[in-house]
Amino acid sequence: MSTSPLQDSVDLTIVDLIIKARWIAPVVPANKVFEDCALVIDQGKIIALLPHQEADRRFKADNILLLPHHLLTPGLINSHTHAAMNLFRGYANDQPLQQWLTQSIWPAEKRWVSDSFVRDGSELAIAEMIQSGISCFADMYFFPEETAQVCLDAKLRCQLSFPIMDFPTAWGSGPDDYMAKGLTLHDNFRDSELINIAFGPHAPYTVSDSVLRRIAILAQEMDMPVQIHLHETAQEIEDSLKTYNKRPSQRLMDLGLLFPLTQCVHMTQIDDTDIALLQNSGASVIHCPESNLKLASGFCPVQRLLSAGINVAIGTDGAASNNDLSLLGELKTAALLAKAVAQDASALNAHTALRMATLHGAMALGLEDKIGSLEVGKSADITAIDLSHLHAQPIYDPVSQLIYNQSAQQVSHLWVNGECLLSEGKLQTLDEKELKAKVKFWQEKIAN
Amino acid sequence: MSTSPLQDSVDLTIVDLIIKARWIAPVVPANKVFEDCALVIDQGKIIALLPHQEADRRFKADNILLLPHHLLTPGLINSHTHAAMNLFRGYANDQPLQQWLTQSIWPAEKRWVSDSFVRDGSELAIAEMIQSGISCFADMYFFPEETAQVCLDAKLRCQLSFPIMDFPTAWGSGPDDYMAKGLTLHDNFRDSELINIAFGPHAPYTVSDSVLRRIAILAQEMDMPVQIHLHETAQEIEDSLKTYNKRPSQRLMDLGLLFPLTQCVHMTQIDDTDIALLQNSGASVIHCPESNLKLASGFCPVQRLLSAGINVAIGTDGAASNNDLSLLGELKTAALLAKAVAQDASALNAHTALRMATLHGAMALGLEDKIGSLEVGKSADITAIDLSHLHAQPIYDPVSQLIYNQSAQQVSHLWVNGECLLSEGKLQTLDEKELKAKVKFWQEKIAN
Repeated sequence: MSTSPLQDSVDLTIVDLIIKARWIAPVVPANKVFEDCALVIDQGKIIALLPHQEADRRFKADNILLLPHHLLTPGLINSHTHAAMNLFRGYANDQPLQQWLTQSIWPAEKRWVSDSFVRDGSELAIAEMIQSGISCFADMYFFPEETAQVCLDAKLRCQLSFPIMDFPTAWGSGPDDYMAKGLTLHDNFRDSELINIAFGPHAPYTVSDSVLRRIAILAQEMDMPVQIHLHETAQEIEDSLKTYNKRPSQRLMDLGLLFPLTQCVHMTQIDDTDIALLQNSGASVIHCPESNLKLASGFCPVQRLLSAGINVAIGTDGAASNNDLSLLGELKTAALLAKAVAQDASALNAHTALRMATLHGAMALGLEDKIGSLEVGKSADITAIDLSHLHAQPIYDPVSQLIYNQSAQQVSHLWVNGECLLSEGKLQTLDEKELKAKVKFWQEKIAN
Repeated sequence: MSTSPLQDSVDLTIVDLIIKARWIAPVVPANKVFEDCALVIDQGKIIALLPHQEADRRFKADNILLLPHHLLTPGLINSHTHAAMNLFRGYANDQPLQQWLTQSIWPAEKRWVSDSFVRDGSELAIAEMIQSGISCFADMYFFPEETAQVCLDAKLRCQLSFPIMDFPTAWGSGPDDYMAKGLTLHDNFRDSELINIAFGPHAPYTVSDSVLRRIAILAQEMDMPVQIHLHETAQEIEDSLKTYNKRPSQRLMDLGLLFPLTQCVHMTQIDDTDIALLQNSGASVIHCPESNLKLASGFCPVQRLLSAGINVAIGTDGAASNNDLSLLGELKTAALLAKAVAQDASALNAHTALRMATLHGAMALGLEDKIGSLEVGKSADITAIDLSHLHAQPIYDPVSQLIYNQSAQQVSHLWVNGECLLSEGKLQTLDEKELKAKVKFWQEKIAN
C-alpha cells in the first residue's frame, strides 16, 4: 500500500481492490448488515470497511468492483468434509447405514482409492466448494498430500486432517505409518499461508487408547488441531459403554484428547455429562445436519449447545452422505432443523447460522485471528452472493434471504487471501471443462 | 395430429413437439429411468415415449428440442402453498410461533392484503414456481379470483381452495359470504383446463361444526376437493381434546369431512387412530417439512404413512414460513428428514420422493387421470432439469442427483398442457422485469 502524491485534493491511498456492495454482513460486529459500503483490500488483507463515498475519498484502485445487488459475507468455512469422496456422490443412496458402509462405500474405497482418485476427487470437490462460496474447508481423507496440492493450485484455504486408524489402508500400513506421513506433511506446510495440518484420528471405535494418547500429547505440544468423528450414532455410545464402561467423550477426555483445538464432528448423541465435558475442555462441535439425517444418525441439539456456550461450527460431510457440498444449503437445513429439535421457532436464527459458517468455523480451526469475519487486518476471504434473482424478492433482511432461500447457486464471487477464485460464477483457478473430463473418466470406471 | 402422405419411406405422423432427452423418469412405471428417449407431444398431450431413433422413424415436428444433459420428469406438483404471501417472504423470521402469528403475520395481513396485493404476490410466486419446475400448485388464500387470473395469464395449472373461516377478513364477511364467493368461482371455472376450485376451510380450530358439515355435504355432492390445515401442532390436538373431547381428525371424520378428495395439510401429530382414519377415508396427507421445521411444529412420520398405504403429497407452504417455493429443495429436506424420523436410512428413497411431488400430488388433487406421470394420453406437463453442472457430477443415478443435490436452480424448461412456460431458464409467459418493479413497490410500502 502506498500513498499517491499526485491527487487533486487529498492524498489517496493506492490499494489492490475495492469492492462496493449493496450489503455487507461482516459477522463482527454481530447481527450487523452495512448498506452501500465498500471493502478495501490490499496485499491480501482487509484494510477498511466504509461507506462508498468515503472509500472514494480515501482510496484508489485499478480494480474497483461494483456489486449493486450483492451481499458480502466472510468466506464460508466448511468445517468437515471428505473432499475426494465427491467421486462417490450418489453412488449408493437410501440404504440402511451398515449396508451402505459394508456393502457399498467400504468396498468402493478399497477398490478405487489411490493418489490419482484423491487428486481428481478433491479437484471436483474444491471446484464445487469455490462455486458455493467456501473459502476454507477442513478435510479428512487418505492421500492428503494430493488434496493439499490441489488446494495450492486452486488457491483455496484448508485444514487437512491426516487420517489415523488402527488398520492398514491404501494410504498406509497402520498408525505409525499414518503418523509419520502426517507429521512429514505438517513439516512441509509449516510456513504455508493456505494449508494447515491437523491430526485426524478417524473415530473412538477405530483408534486404540495408546494411539489416541500419543496424538493427544503431540497435538498439544505442537499446537495442532485434532478432528475426530464423535458420538455420530447411538450404537457408538452403546458399544463404548460395553467395551470401555464410559461414553466416548469421557474416554477422549481421560486420554487428554479434548482441548480447545479438538473438533468433535457430529455429536448427535448428547447428555449433560457431554455438555460439561465440552464446556470444560473448550472443544468445538462440528454440526453436519444433512449427513446426520441422510444416514439416520440422529439430531444434534444445536441450540442447547449454543446456549451452553459451546462453539458450534458446520460441515457438509462428504458428498457420499449429503450429496452436495453447498454450505448455504447446509445452513438452511441447520437453521430449520434446530427449531424443530429445540421445539422453539426462535432457535438458531439466520445471523447465528451465518456465524456458525464463518467465525465459529475459524474458532474451531484455531484460525480466528486470520479469518471468519470481515474485520480490518484479517485476510481478504470474502464471499459475494447475488440477491437479485426473483426467488429472493422482496428483501426485508438480506441475511434471512441468504440462509432461508435457495441462495447456494447465487454465489457470484469468492476471494481467498485477496485472490479471486470465482468471478461472475466462473472458476478462475481451475479448468471446468478439463475437470469434467476427469470426472467422466472415473464415473465410467466406477459405474462398471 | 395428422399423417403426412409425402414421406420418402414410411408415413411420418406430424406432431407439435418432440423432446429428446438424456434421461426420462416417467414415474409410471415406478422407479424407471429411460435413457436417450424422446417424448412426443401433440395438442397438449403426450402421445409417445420412445427411443430417439424410433421417434425419428415415426414422427415429424417443426419443433424438435434436444436436451442432451437433461432429465425430464412429470411437471412437479406443489400441493400446498399460499402464493400471495410471497410478498411477506422474510418479513418475519426466527420468532416463536405465537409471536410470529399475532405480532407479525396477522397484523401485516390485516394491513396489506387486498385484491392488488394478492394479484402481485401471486405473480411473484407463480414466476418462482415456474422457474422451479412446478407445473401445478394447490393454493389457499384470500381473493383467489386474482390468483386464478394470474394462472390463466401465466398458463400454469392450479387448484384454488377458497378460504373459509368463522370470522370476517378483507375478502369476505364470514362463512356464508366465503361460500357464496367460492361457489361462484367454481361456476366460473367449471370448464377450465387449468383451474380447479376446492373448498378451503382454514383449520378445525377456525371453522365451526355447522360450517364444516355444510362443506362436507356440498364437496361430496359436487365432487370437489377439500384442503384443510390439520394436526399442524401439538397445541391444536390438546385444544381439540379440551373443547370437543376428540382429536381434530376424529371430529372431521364425524362431520363427514374425511373422504378421498380431502387434503390434510401438515399432520405432524399422528397416532394409530389417525392412521386408521386416513386409511379408512382415503384422504391424502400434504407434507410440508420445511414449514413444519421453521415453525417448530413437529415431524410428520412420512415413512410410517407411506407404509400404511396412505397417499402422501408434498407442499412448500407459503413463503412466509419456508422461505422459498422450491419443490426440489423441499424434496431434499423431505427425503433426508424422513430417514432420521424413521431411524432408517432407507426410508423415503429418491424415487418415492419424486413420486410424492408428481403422481401422489395428482392423486391428492383428484387429477391423476390427467397429470402426475409421463404416460401416453396424459397432459404434457413436463419439467426438464439440466444435470450438466459440476455439483451434479458424477451421475450414477439421475433421480438421486435430482433429489439429493441442489438441483432447484437447474430447472431449464417447463411445459404445461404442451405450452412452454420456461425455456432455457427464461420465463415465457411473464415479464420478469415488470414483476420485479411491482415487488419493489410492495417491499417499500411494507418495510416502512
